[in-house]
Amino acid sequence: MPASLASTTLGALAERHGLELRGNAATVIEGVCALAPGQPGRLGFCADPRLRPQLVGSSAAAVIITAQDAAVFGGNALIAANPAVAFAGIAREFDRAEEFPALIHARACIDATAMIGDGCGIGPGAVIEADAVIGAGSYIGPNCVIRRAAVIGAGSRLEANVYVGPDCRIGARARVLPGAVIGGRGFGLARDRSGWVEVPQLGRVLIGDDVEIGANTTIDRGALDDTVIEDGVKIDNLVQIAHNCHVGSGTAIAACTGLAGSTRIGRHCMIGGGVGISGHLQICDQVVVLGMTLVTKSITEPGIYSSGLPAEPARQWRRDVGRIRRLGKVDARLAAIEQLLKMTPSTAGEQGEQGDF
Amino acid sequence: MPASLASTTLGALAERHGLELRGNAATVIEGVCALAPGQPGRLGFCADPRLRPQLVGSSAAAVIITAQDAAVFGGNALIAANPAVAFAGIAREFDRAEEFPALIHARACIDATAMIGDGCGIGPGAVIEADAVIGAGSYIGPNCVIRRAAVIGAGSRLEANVYVGPDCRIGARARVLPGAVIGGRGFGLARDRSGWVEVPQLGRVLIGDDVEIGANTTIDRGALDDTVIEDGVKIDNLVQIAHNCHVGSGTAIAACTGLAGSTRIGRHCMIGGGVGISGHLQICDQVVVLGMTLVTKSITEPGIYSSGLPAEPARQWRRDVGRIRRLGKVDARLAAIEQLLKMTPSTAGEQGEQGDF
Amino acid sequence: MPASLASTTLGALAERHGLELRGNAATVIEGVCALAPGQPGRLGFCADPRLRPQLVGSSAAAVIITAQDAAVFGGNALIAANPAVAFAGIAREFDRAEEFPALIHARACIDATAMIGDGCGIGPGAVIEADAVIGAGSYIGPNCVIRRAAVIGAGSRLEANVYVGPDCRIGARARVLPGAVIGGRGFGLARDRSGWVEVPQLGRVLIGDDVEIGANTTIDRGALDDTVIEDGVKIDNLVQIAHNCHVGSGTAIAACTGLAGSTRIGRHCMIGGGVGISGHLQICDQVVVLGMTLVTKSITEPGIYSSGLPAEPARQWRRDVGRIRRLGKVDARLAAIEQLLKMTPSTAGEQGEQGDF
Repeated sequence: MPASLASTTLGALAERHGLELRGNAATVIEGVCALAPGQPGRLGFCADPRLRPQLVGSSAAAVIITAQDAAVFGGNALIAANPAVAFAGIAREFDRAEEFPALIHARACIDATAMIGDGCGIGPGAVIEADAVIGAGSYIGPNCVIRRAAVIGAGSRLEANVYVGPDCRIGARARVLPGAVIGGRGFGLARDRSGWVEVPQLGRVLIGDDVEIGANTTIDRGALDDTVIEDGVKIDNLVQIAHNCHVGSGTAIAACTGLAGSTRIGRHCMIGGGVGISGHLQICDQVVVLGMTLVTKSITEPGIYSSGLPAEPARQWRRDVGRIRRLGKVDARLAAIEQLLKMTPSTAGEQGEQGDF
Repeated sequence: MPASLASTTLGALAERHGLELRGNAATVIEGVCALAPGQPGRLGFCADPRLRPQLVGSSAAAVIITAQDAAVFGGNALIAANPAVAFAGIAREFDRAEEFPALIHARACIDATAMIGDGCGIGPGAVIEADAVIGAGSYIGPNCVIRRAAVIGAGSRLEANVYVGPDCRIGARARVLPGAVIGGRGFGLARDRSGWVEVPQLGRVLIGDDVEIGANTTIDRGALDDTVIEDGVKIDNLVQIAHNCHVGSGTAIAACTGLAGSTRIGRHCMIGGGVGISGHLQICDQVVVLGMTLVTKSITEPGIYSSGLPAEPARQWRRDVGRIRRLGKVDARLAAIEQLLKMTPSTAGEQGEQGDF
Repeated sequence: MPASLASTTLGALAERHGLELRGNAATVIEGVCALAPGQPGRLGFCADPRLRPQLVGSSAAAVIITAQDAAVFGGNALIAANPAVAFAGIAREFDRAEEFPALIHARACIDATAMIGDGCGIGPGAVIEADAVIGAGSYIGPNCVIRRAAVIGAGSRLEANVYVGPDCRIGARARVLPGAVIGGRGFGLARDRSGWVEVPQLGRVLIGDDVEIGANTTIDRGALDDTVIEDGVKIDNLVQIAHNCHVGSGTAIAACTGLAGSTRIGRHCMIGGGVGISGHLQICDQVVVLGMTLVTKSITEPGIYSSGLPAEPARQWRRDVGRIRRLGKVDARLAAIEQLLKMTPSTAGEQGEQGDF
């Protein structure tokens, strides 16, 4: 990883990132900042039209904005079609948090048969077992455990206390946050007369390139076949992905969400936080699931899905729950009225019995 | 742990596992596989009648099936009353993932007063404090921390980065997945005028035999009495069990579920994923709670319980929520109609106020 | 930390804790216990009027009770306005679980530029990077990782396997349970034509004094500004706090709850377990959110909020769900009846479309 910048100029940034410059190219940029209140000597950005009013008062030395915003903004600016993406690229130049010395620490514990690529940094207390392979330029943080024959692609970054199970594979440029557990035993049980019998979990976890896995997230290895996470998937903290799940490329999964076993999520999906998805389902591409939704059936049409109930004052909510519980009476009262009025009798009452999930 | 097999014959497996053989006893079996598509030289199984159609096309060298399925299947087979359980037993013979050398690694850090049984494997970075006891044949993985006077039963397996708190006890043949925290401080607080006061948590966690605890699951120690997990309990990943809970034998708890303090779960229950159970409740034996259900009252009858709302397209769901919020108006409209028609007035409206949870 | 007591007398406890004594001051107290069944030689307490009947049968050598209860209880007692708080203070005297030797273990790995205060205990496998500062009298447990330039206040206690990210700050008297991850990368992504682009997360986590953070809880560092946890906040296990959240002083958050990015929780709030709070919201002071509630809008009035649906037998619940799904028909049936009766037509049907969350 190249050393990060101490400072540069707005002109140099425009050139390196292929952005149009407005204002003084010699403006010194020492870092990035939030648009409001902004910081002198730093670069902000505005990607959201609702934040436009903050442009005027910002103390930032310059901002990244759209051409549309630039038409009405008089200060120093870089113009980008997608200011958030441009900002991400520039911010990376100033990010020191992920630099590491390309050294194997004396307190790391690396099996003689493990292969460590060039330019890796291996932290103290890291354990790398037999036949494991660490790609060039990767960082394996303190107290990580890479089990037997696991493979980590080049340019990956595993923070502290990460666990990677035997034979599991992670692609290039992965980013795995502290405490993540990749390739723990799947929750595979069979029922005997005497109780639960553990079913050996012989599959692996296979993770593509450019994948992010959040802190304390758990991804179980497959029972017989593998659990698969495709390229470009982004997974937040405290997510559970059970054995034999398959997550399609470019899908993002927010925190505290759980996927039960053998479920297949399509490509470019966005799964909200606190979502639960039952096992053995198929979710097609381009599906958005809003926060705290329960998915119990396969989804075959792209679109937005939801079942989370938004909060109310508890007293009001208790009444709503009571009313839901009395809906059977509503049906009965309606039917009695309809009968009295000799309206067409409703069959809605019986349909209720058929619903299953 | 005995060395795992490289290969065997179908006849030898039939004999060792007490299963009836159909077909060629000399068939070489080098491992296990999924039924579809199957793998040559490997053994599959069919436990679910819905998968029967896969039997014909499978490339597996042999399959484990019920007598009923065997009547119509012409290939090599082992016949079992419960094919899933039989498969689990045979698969275990081929499972290399959990072998370990019976050695204490030079980088483990073991107090002189700790007692380590015969045949244990202790990984690098593992810390075993004073007066702890590790039963014979156990595996304590890299970077595990076993605190003062904790006791681990014989034949147990603690994967990497597991924490076991002071004085906690785990029975024989336990399996604790990476990152699990057993015996952390309970969330015990009292309210003073100035804010929260921490209540010391002086109890332990007591765990029976044959218990599985998932990755990054947390089980808090009791406040005064102990938190208890009985024999044969199986707990998935990212589960929270608060102080002074008691989980009865043979109960299984799926991922992302939380039990609040002092709740008692009966025996042979199945608690789904993402479930929340309030504190100080009693759940009787043989209760099944479906995924993402909220349990706020004790359950005294065996059966299946639920409150999870299944996903809909968000637009449709938003309408449903709006209609729930207008149920009070439905009551009022019904009452107005009933009054106009001189029907018996309904008292349902007032009952709504009484509901509490 | 001072050595804990082996035994004392009831009179000595009354004096040290400023409590009124009833009965025999010479009663030997060797520890604390639950009120029922109680233990000889130990001190119990009764803070809940519903537990009063247990006072008579308790085997405890003495109890902490209110003046009101003391009027009718004849045994040895300490009288306190708030027995739970008084008990917490006395129990702490007997708590041995958190004693530690004030030593830096030979297997700890501490950078030469890190500053370690007097009287600290640093466990084996702990890693403290360059420029980190550990306040006097703190305990950093085995295999903790304190990254570059992080600061931990005096008298803090970090249990095993805790991660504190670069530049993060934790105040005095913190208590961080095993596996907590403080200052992992926020889940900051921007969307490019080719997929997700990681947005560098340059902020810190700033944590006040007297904060508790539960086992395997994750608190992400800010994107540009900092994530802030104020003084006296108490956070349970497996909680997710996303980048740029702000939690006000004295707020408590129960297990399995998730806060999305940039949300601000007020002071003295109580957030239940399994709650989900959307991003960019403002929750005012003194708000209580009950378990498994989804908060999708800012809350501006103190009070109790809820949306969790309590469990029912699954068969009954399935009918309730079917009836919710048919509420549109209820509206239509009501409208038809009202029309027939020439009642004022209802507009409730259209209002449903307007609801948004």
